[in-house]
Amino acid sequence: MFKKTLLSVLILFVLLSTSHSEDGYELWLRYKKCDQPQLLASYRNHFSGIFLAGNHPSIDAAFSEMVHGLSGIMDKNIPLLKSPQEGAILIGTVTELFPHLQKLSPSFKRPVVPQKKEGYVVVRIPYKQHGLTIITSTSPVGVLYGSFHLLRLLQSQTPVEKLAANESPALDLRMLNHWDNLTRHVERGYAGIALWNWHTLPDYKDPRYTDYARANASLGINAVTVTNVNANALVLTKPYLEKLQALADIFRPYGIRLFLTARFSAPIELDKFKTADPLDEGVKAWWKRKTDEIYQYIPDFGGFLVKANSEGQPGPQNYKRNHADGANMLADAVAPHGGNIVWRAFVYNPESDDRFKQAYEEFKPLDGQFRNNVLVQVKNGPIDFQPREPFSPLFGAISKTPLIMEFQITQEYLGQATHLVYQAPMFKEVLNAETFSNGKPATVLNVIEQRLRPDALTGIAGVANIGNDRNWTGHLFGQANWYAFGRLAWNPNLSSESIAEEWIRQTFNNHPVTVQTVQKMMMGSHESLVRYMTPLGLAHIMGNGHHYGPLPWGNTLGRPDWNPVYYHRADSFGIGFNRTATGTNALAQYAPEVRKQWEDSNSCDEKYLLWFHHVSWQHKMKSGKTLWQELTDHYYQGVNDMRKMKVEWSGLVKKIDPERFNHVSMLLGIQEKEAVWWRNACLLYFQTFSKMPIPAHYEQPDQTLEYYKSLRFPYAPGN
Amino acid sequence: MFKKTLLSVLILFVLLSTSHSEDGYELWLRYKKCDQPQLLASYRNHFSGIFLAGNHPSIDAAFSEMVHGLSGIMDKNIPLLKSPQEGAILIGTVTELFPHLQKLSPSFKRPVVPQKKEGYVVVRIPYKQHGLTIITSTSPVGVLYGSFHLLRLLQSQTPVEKLAANESPALDLRMLNHWDNLTRHVERGYAGIALWNWHTLPDYKDPRYTDYARANASLGINAVTVTNVNANALVLTKPYLEKLQALADIFRPYGIRLFLTARFSAPIELDKFKTADPLDEGVKAWWKRKTDEIYQYIPDFGGFLVKANSEGQPGPQNYKRNHADGANMLADAVAPHGGNIVWRAFVYNPESDDRFKQAYEEFKPLDGQFRNNVLVQVKNGPIDFQPREPFSPLFGAISKTPLIMEFQITQEYLGQATHLVYQAPMFKEVLNAETFSNGKPATVLNVIEQRLRPDALTGIAGVANIGNDRNWTGHLFGQANWYAFGRLAWNPNLSSESIAEEWIRQTFNNHPVTVQTVQKMMMGSHESLVRYMTPLGLAHIMGNGHHYGPLPWGNTLGRPDWNPVYYHRADSFGIGFNRTATGTNALAQYAPEVRKQWEDSNSCDEKYLLWFHHVSWQHKMKSGKTLWQELTDHYYQGVNDMRKMKVEWSGLVKKIDPERFNHVSMLLGIQEKEAVWWRNACLLYFQTFSKMPIPAHYEQPDQTLEYYKSLRFPYAPGN
Repeated sequence: MFKKTLLSVLILFVLLSTSHSEDGYELWLRYKKCDQPQLLASYRNHFSGIFLAGNHPSIDAAFSEMVHGLSGIMDKNIPLLKSPQEGAILIGTVTELFPHLQKLSPSFKRPVVPQKKEGYVVVRIPYKQHGLTIITSTSPVGVLYGSFHLLRLLQSQTPVEKLAANESPALDLRMLNHWDNLTRHVERGYAGIALWNWHTLPDYKDPRYTDYARANASLGINAVTVTNVNANALVLTKPYLEKLQALADIFRPYGIRLFLTARFSAPIELDKFKTADPLDEGVKAWWKRKTDEIYQYIPDFGGFLVKANSEGQPGPQNYKRNHADGANMLADAVAPHGGNIVWRAFVYNPESDDRFKQAYEEFKPLDGQFRNNVLVQVKNGPIDFQPREPFSPLFGAISKTPLIMEFQITQEYLGQATHLVYQAPMFKEVLNAETFSNGKPATVLNVIEQRLRPDALTGIAGVANIGNDRNWTGHLFGQANWYAFGRLAWNPNLSSESIAEEWIRQTFNNHPVTVQTVQKMMMGSHESLVRYMTPLGLAHIMGNGHHYGPLPWGNTLGRPDWNPVYYHRADSFGIGFNRTATGTNALAQYAPEVRKQWEDSNSCDEKYLLWFHHVSWQHKMKSGKTLWQELTDHYYQGVNDMRKMKVEWSGLVKKIDPERFNHVSMLLGIQEKEAVWWRNACLLYFQTFSKMPIPAHYEQPDQTLEYYKSLRFPYAPGN
Repeated sequence: MFKKTLLSVLILFVLLSTSHSEDGYELWLRYKKCDQPQLLASYRNHFSGIFLAGNHPSIDAAFSEMVHGLSGIMDKNIPLLKSPQEGAILIGTVTELFPHLQKLSPSFKRPVVPQKKEGYVVVRIPYKQHGLTIITSTSPVGVLYGSFHLLRLLQSQTPVEKLAANESPALDLRMLNHWDNLTRHVERGYAGIALWNWHTLPDYKDPRYTDYARANASLGINAVTVTNVNANALVLTKPYLEKLQALADIFRPYGIRLFLTARFSAPIELDKFKTADPLDEGVKAWWKRKTDEIYQYIPDFGGFLVKANSEGQPGPQNYKRNHADGANMLADAVAPHGGNIVWRAFVYNPESDDRFKQAYEEFKPLDGQFRNNVLVQVKNGPIDFQPREPFSPLFGAISKTPLIMEFQITQEYLGQATHLVYQAPMFKEVLNAETFSNGKPATVLNVIEQRLRPDALTGIAGVANIGNDRNWTGHLFGQANWYAFGRLAWNPNLSSESIAEEWIRQTFNNHPVTVQTVQKMMMGSHESLVRYMTPLGLAHIMGNGHHYGPLPWGNTLGRPDWNPVYYHRADSFGIGFNRTATGTNALAQYAPEVRKQWEDSNSCDEKYLLWFHHVSWQHKMKSGKTLWQELTDHYYQGVNDMRKMKVEWSGLVKKIDPERFNHVSMLLGIQEKEAVWWRNACLLYFQTFSKMPIPAHYEQPDQTLEYYKSLRFPYAPGN
C-alpha cells in the first residue's frame, strides 16, 4: 500500500512538474517578499508611495519596475503619489525633481548628482517621521539605473539607514554581442535558439524582449548587437530594418542602443556592386546612403560592429586595403549621426608561424590611423576565449586607439551547456593584468578605461550566453555570468566575491548558508575547470568545430592552427608551445616587464607555463614534482574540486526550491561525468608521450584512450 | 505631469512584462480556483480526500494530477486518505479498488468497467452525506485517463450530480509524430525548436518532458515518435538509445509508448553494409539484432514508423522490392516483442502524370501482402495537408490492411506560426467523408476503425505542432489543435463545437461570453482560411520550400509537381486540374458513388471544384455568378471573415488576461495582413489569365503583382 516516502516523492513531483514560478525566468529580478519580519516592517514604514517628477519613457520604466519590485518585496500595493509626502520615493531627473523638494521645504538642497549622464544617486533624507528616498540623476536613464540599484539593495535585505548610492559607470559602452543568425541558430549558443523571432517581428512584440531589456538595464548594459559578427547582409535591408526598429523601440526606454553587425561585402550582395573596396567612391556612397536609411528607422542607432578578414569574412584586405581603411570608411558614414564603428581585432591568417602573434602584427602598425569614432574590439587573450589565457599583447601595445575588451560570456570553451563556471574571477584576472603600456604601470583595465585619453570613448563587450530557454542561459548559473559581466562593465573594481553575493541574494535567498555555500562553489569553479580541462597553460585541446569535450589528439583539420596538436605540441621530450626567443618569440609582443615574468620556464607563473614554454616531462615544478606529476595532480584535483562542489550543492536541498535545486543537481552530475572524461582522455593521451604512470593511488581511467578517441558528437550544440 | 491614462498603461505594462502565470505553459491543465461560489462549496463538500487502491506508476501519476488539480480548483489541500470515507475519491483498478468498497459496505457492487483496457468509468455512488467518487478501470492507465476526465469536468464547472463517465477509446494507436531532427530543428515546426534536448539527455531530465506526457495523457494520446520521418540512422545507436530510454521511462507512467523512425538504409550507414535489401538475410538479421537491442532499453517499445522511397528517403524500391517487402522485413523483427510497423503511404514519383494518383497506384496492388503487425499510414488527402483536400482514395480502396489516418496538426499549409485556425472541422470533414469502401456505405472513420475486421489494430496519427516555445505551440490557439486531435483520436464522434467548448472552458474561463465568442471564432476560422488562401478547390499555391505565403506563379522548381502552376493550371480559358476521364482520371480511384458526386463540373460540390475540373472563368456557379466572380468573392469573404474574428477577439479584452489577450491580438494583426496579402497576390495573378476585374466596390489591392512577386523569405521557419 501507499507509503509515506512515496507520498513525499509524489508531492515533490507535483511541485516539480507543475510549479513554474521557480523556473529561472525571473533572473535576479525576483522581488520576493522580504522574509525578515522586522526589516519588512521597516521597509513598509519607510516606503509608502512613489512620486514621479517628469515624464519620460525611462522614468515610466523606472516607475513600473519600482511598483513591481516594491509591491513584491513588501507584499503590499504601492500607490502613485500626487505630491511628495513622508515615506515617498521621489523619482526623476534632478532638474525636474528639485522643484518638488523645494516646495516641500525650502531648506532642502539640490541633490548633488554625478556628472556622467548615466550616473545617479540614491539618498535618504530626513523629513517628518519616515523621511524621503530620492533617486535622481541628470538623465532619465540614470534614474532608471538608480531605481534598479535601490531594488537590488532591498532584495539583499539592506537596512533602510544604509540605503545610499552614488554611482557612475567606469566605461561608456557596456555591450552585449549576440552571435545570433537570422535562422535563429545561435553560434556558440547553449540555451536554445535566439530570442529574436525575426519571422514574427515587427508586429509581434514578445513581452520577453522587454524583460530582456529590463535585465540589461538592471546591470547598466547600454548597447547590444542582436546579430552575428559572422554577418548576413540581409539585416541591412528594409524588412529587417523594420524588425530592428521594433526591437530598438522596445530597448530605448531601458537606455539600450542597438548596433548592427555589418557584412563588409554588403554592397555586392545587396546591390550587385562589383566591389566593396572601402576607397571606392561608389562603395563609400552606398554605405552613407545605407547608414542614413538605418538612422531613419533607429534615430539613436549605435553603429556597426565588424568582423572583417577573419575566418572567411570579407573585408578591406580583399582589396589590398587595411583594417583602418575599412573601419574609417564606415566611420565616416556613421559620424554625422554620432555613430561609432567597433572593429574586431580577432584575425589570424594561415601563413603565420604562431596564431598568438597575428592580431598584434596586423593591428599594431595601424595604431593612430583610425578615425576618432572607431573602437577596436580585442578578445581578452591572444587566441580564443580559452579557459585561461594571458592577456592579449594588443592591450599593452595600442595607445592611440580606444580598445574595447571582448569577453565571451557564453561558455564555448568552458563546458558549454552543462558546466557551472563563474567567470568573474577570470574576467578580473585579465582586467587586473599589468601591461606596462607606454612603459608605465597600467593594467588592462587602465588601458580600456583610456586613463591617458579622458575624452576617448571606452567600452567593454560580452558575447552573450542568452537564448530562448526558459531560464535564458540554459544553465541557471549562466545567469551569474551575464550578471557579473554587466556589473563589472559598470564597475570593474567590484570584487568577484561581492558580485557573487549580490547575485545569490537576489537569485536564491539571503540565508547565510545559501550565500556562503553558493559563493564558495562559484569562486572555486573556474579554477576547477581549468584544472580538469587545460591546466598549467594548456589551450585549445577541445573537439573540432563544436569544441565540445577533449580532443588533444586532434590533427585532422585543414589548417595547422585549427588543430589541438598545434597548441600543446606534446612529444617524447615534453609539452607546451615555445613562444620565447628560441621559439616563435610571441613574448616579444609584450612590454619588457611583462615578458620578463614569463620568459624563463623556471620562474614563469606556472598557470601560464605551457603557453610560453615547451618543457620536459621531467621539468621540476615549484612544488618539487615533475611536470608530469604536476599535470596529473591538476587533472585529478580538478575532478576532486568539482566533486566537492557537487557535495556542497547537495547540502542546500532545504535552502533552494526543488525545481532549481534539481536543475542544478542534474547538471552537476553531467559536469562530473565530463570532468572525469576530460581528465582521463587528456592524461591517457599525454601519457603516450610521457610514458610515465598515473600514480596508483588515483582512481585509474575506466575507459581506454581508443574509447575516448572513438566518441563522436555530430549534433553538439552551438556549432 | 503624470496622467491617469499613462498610469493604466504602465500598470498594464507591469502586468505584461512581469506576470508569467498566463504565458500559456499550463495548456488546458490550469486548475484555477472555481469562480462560482455555490459550486465551489459543493465541490469542497463532496471531495474531501483521495483514497488510492494499489500501487503503480500510472496510479501515482493519477494521484499527483488529482492533488494538483483538486487543490487548485477547490483552493484547499487534499489529503491522502488511509481508508475510504464519505467524500473520498477512490482511485484504482477495479480489482484493487473493489475490496475496499466492500469493506465500506457489503452492499456495494463491483463497478462495471469497459472491456478495453484503456477504458474507464467515473461514478458517484451514494454513501452517507457526501457520497463517494469512483475512478476505475481494468488498467492503471485507464484510471489515469479517468482522473483527467474528472478534472476536465470540474474545470468546466460540471455540477457534482452530473459527474459521470464511461469511456473507451475508438482507436488503438493515438499517436503524435514529431518531425524533430537531432539538431533540434523541427521540420515544419513553428514553435521554436524541439523539446528534446538530445545533448543533455539522458542525464538531464527536463521537467517539461513530464508536463508533455501529462498533456498527452489528459487526451489519451498513447504513442509518440520523437524523431523525424526524414530519418537519421543515428537514433538507432547506443548513445541515442540511452537518451530515448530516459524519455520512454518518463512517458511510461502516462501510458505513452515510444516509437522510432527508422532510416531504411541504416545497416549501410551504421555498419557499412553494402545493401539494405529487405530480402537480404544479413540485412534481416541486422534489423532483428537492432530491434532486440532497442527492446533492452525500452521493453514496451512500440515499433518503427517508416517513410521509404519518398522525397529522397531510401527504401525497398532501391533494391527493386516493394513497400510490403520492406515493411514485412521490419515487421518480422519487431513481432516477437509485440511491436508494430507503421509504414507511410506518402509517396510520389516524378514520372506520374498526376501526383494525386500515386499513393493509390503504389499501395493498392499491395493490399493483403502486409504482415498483421503492419499498419499503413495515409495522409488525409491525396496531396499534402492542403487547407482543403478530398479524402485520399486509399481509404476507399484498401480493405485488407489496417490504415492509420495521418493528420497534420502543425500548420505547414495553414498559416504556420501566425494564423488562428481551428482544425477540428477539417479533421471531421475527412473522417465523415463517405468512401463506399467495398461498395457499401462506410465513412473514412469506419475504414480506420476497421469496422469489418474487429481484431485488427486501429490508429490515428497527428504531426505535432509542439516546440520549445513557452506556450508549446507558438500560437496559443495551436494548443486547441493538439487538444482537438487528441480528443478526436479518443472519440471521433465528438463534435467540433463541443471540443472547442471544452478547450475554451479549461484554457480561458467558463464565462458564457468567453465561451460563445471564442467558439464562434474557432468554428469559422478554417473556412475563412480556405477562402483567403485556396478557395473552391485550389491547392498547393504556397511559397517554395518553406510554404509560407502565396506563390501561385511559382514555376521554377525542378519537378513539375513541386510547382504551384502544376496544381492550379490557370490559363486564358480557366483554372483547375482536370482529374475526370478527360483528364488524368484520378477520379477513377474512388468508388463509383464518390466519383459520381464529383465528376460533373456542374454538380460537383464547389468546395472541391478546382480539385477535379479545369473550368472556364465564365463557368456559371450555383450562385449564378461566374467562376471569376465567385473566386473573387471568396477571397474577399475570407479576409472579411478574418477581420470579424479580430473584432470578436477585441471584445474579450476584459474577459481574458492581458498577456494572452495581447498575444492573440498581435497575431490576429499579422493574420489580417497576411490574409490581405494572399487575397491580393492570388487575385492579381489569376487576373492575368481571366482578364476580368476585381469589382469596384471591393477595396482594391494596394500593391502590384510585381511587388508580391518580389517578396523573399529566405529564413521563413520550419523549412
